[in-house]
Amino acid sequence: MSYIKLPVDRVRMYCTEIFRKHGFTDEEAAGITDVVLTADLYGIESHGVQRMIRYHNSIVRGHVDSSRKAVIEYETPVSAVIDGDKTMGQVTARMAMQMAIGKARERGFGSVVVKNCNHYGIAGYYARMAAEQELLGISATNTEAIAIPTFGKQPMLGTSPIAVCIPADPYFFWYDCATTVVPRGKLEVFNKRGEPLKDGWAADENGHPCLDAGHVLENINSKNYGGIFPIGGYSKETGSHKGYGLGIIAELMTGIFSGGHTSPHVENGGMGDTSFNFTVIDYGMFGDKAEIRKRMSTLLQELRDSAKAEGRDRIYTPGEPEMESMADKLANGIPVNEKTEEELRMIGEYVGVDYAEYF
Amino acid sequence: MSYIKLPVDRVRMYCTEIFRKHGFTDEEAAGITDVVLTADLYGIESHGVQRMIRYHNSIVRGHVDSSRKAVIEYETPVSAVIDGDKTMGQVTARMAMQMAIGKARERGFGSVVVKNCNHYGIAGYYARMAAEQELLGISATNTEAIAIPTFGKQPMLGTSPIAVCIPADPYFFWYDCATTVVPRGKLEVFNKRGEPLKDGWAADENGHPCLDAGHVLENINSKNYGGIFPIGGYSKETGSHKGYGLGIIAELMTGIFSGGHTSPHVENGGMGDTSFNFTVIDYGMFGDKAEIRKRMSTLLQELRDSAKAEGRDRIYTPGEPEMESMADKLANGIPVNEKTEEELRMIGEYVGVDYAEYF
Repeated sequence: MSYIKLPVDRVRMYCTEIFRKHGFTDEEAAGITDVVLTADLYGIESHGVQRMIRYHNSIVRGHVDSSRKAVIEYETPVSAVIDGDKTMGQVTARMAMQMAIGKARERGFGSVVVKNCNHYGIAGYYARMAAEQELLGISATNTEAIAIPTFGKQPMLGTSPIAVCIPADPYFFWYDCATTVVPRGKLEVFNKRGEPLKDGWAADENGHPCLDAGHVLENINSKNYGGIFPIGGYSKETGSHKGYGLGIIAELMTGIFSGGHTSPHVENGGMGDTSFNFTVIDYGMFGDKAEIRKRMSTLLQELRDSAKAEGRDRIYTPGEPEMESMADKLANGIPVNEKTEEELRMIGEYVGVDYAEYF
Repeated sequence: MSYIKLPVDRVRMYCTEIFRKHGFTDEEAAGITDVVLTADLYGIESHGVQRMIRYHNSIVRGHVDSSRKAVIEYETPVSAVIDGDKTMGQVTARMAMQMAIGKARERGFGSVVVKNCNHYGIAGYYARMAAEQELLGISATNTEAIAIPTFGKQPMLGTSPIAVCIPADPYFFWYDCATTVVPRGKLEVFNKRGEPLKDGWAADENGHPCLDAGHVLENINSKNYGGIFPIGGYSKETGSHKGYGLGIIAELMTGIFSGGHTSPHVENGGMGDTSFNFTVIDYGMFGDKAEIRKRMSTLLQELRDSAKAEGRDRIYTPGEPEMESMADKLANGIPVNEKTEEELRMIGEYVGVDYAEYF
């Protein structure tokens, strides 16, 4: 598939205008667009503008309603439970993280959970919001069940990512990882390429490791048994139980704390029944923040400077590849494939924004 | 090696008496013993009475001094930084977790970090202390560097476990996992057995995967390059970067927040320079605690009840095998191998407690 590169500022204006036309306020539209574009800037194409069509369809089909507002159901000085009430994931998520930040500023700690909401994009976006305020940010979301418990064959947990971000120099420590060994999108890529999957990625309908991407995806789509393994694969010898447990922790943070749907009960790709967690810690509670930032920066530099494996010339720290990607995208544009370009054009036509005026 | 089984209550009395003779108060001695015995009860032999000889030697050699007390260096209503001042890990750790519990009861959240301390046993013990008070408990420790960053060959991070525990019925959710794919003890077991390691466990001095346990251990012991891989092994395809990032998070929680030594600077097996984290969240901040406990219990039951892989008849949830192990040990005694029995006898002789009076 061929790619073109679109200038970041133009994409930003175009997408913002689309969300405005869909009824979101200026601030909401800019916020949603920022989440989407950050994924592209960080090199996470799967969560970038190629998802515009999904968001557009959710709105058109009424799964997302721009006129609805999330409702605070329960609140304490350090916490809140929010009913997302089928609002746009990114809008409610940004608001919830902002609340958690405010609480952490006041009390050192803030944790806001959201239920009944829609796909919120990359978890790491929200964790980073806190880090930009010199706080430790954590975010997690559950998803439709796709992960197989250790010794199981039935998808019971989501790919449910957990993200953690804290300031450091020259790059923030930015961790955003699915609790499965790979996300579903990876299987789709291998399927398109006709390549066999790697051992430890996915299971067939009997719970056995399976390298046939098409077969696994078919099972997933038809809600048959089989799915993706947790981090650590399928054997306790490779730490399968560690990833399986992390998946449960992600579920605890989201569906359990919020009282929303847990992954086994999230349907239709999580439209309207996804839960999130936004937790912020003011690490000033452990002393001088500049000192802590310096210590973290030193550790990360030591890791980057440590001896490389034979055949490797570089060790990365989490968040570093994303910063390099961003510099590249800001200079050279966001790579968009033909299909996505066509979708963007079509969405514009639908809502009345002229693609040609922007690109 | 042949095993005998020793009655739990006798082991408890014997070990407690040994620690008393080493100068600890009754409460301290009982506390240290409880941490050690919990490991045996949970089936984690590596952290049980077989470590008594290490603790004994640390005290005899003056690395641990029973007359010293940890010092609170910095404190806020939700946090504290404690200088462990080379005290016994278990004593200071129990005290620190108790502080975090008290703060969480008052403020919803409490996080206490400790630096300059000694090996504290199983991380999960402390997480469980909070869960027994109907709170969410988290604990982590760093360790001597033994883990290789993705694309590296130099041990830079510890096996640094992270533990999370929250009440549920009939078993608590109890997660206690090293951030490496296996702990060092596993290599020792395979070395003794003369078996090749599993792919993805360990690296040689060039950073290449290595199945020779003896060779890897020799490198580790001689502070050469090579070591254990993070959860996810050595390849990004199996999620190596996810475990590597988790190892950094464990380090952030411990050495960075406390201002203690980070793993690359922990020496001599962490004697006197290990850091801990004890974090407690009163999940009542998210609504009715009985409801949350019920929701968590339901999720765990659904996981146990979900369809089994062909050839498997059971799916466990984290903490379940440990409860079964405990029931067995309470009924049938703690299995102790010849060498450990001999060590226990010798320690008794040294401090003046008669082994024969107890067993």
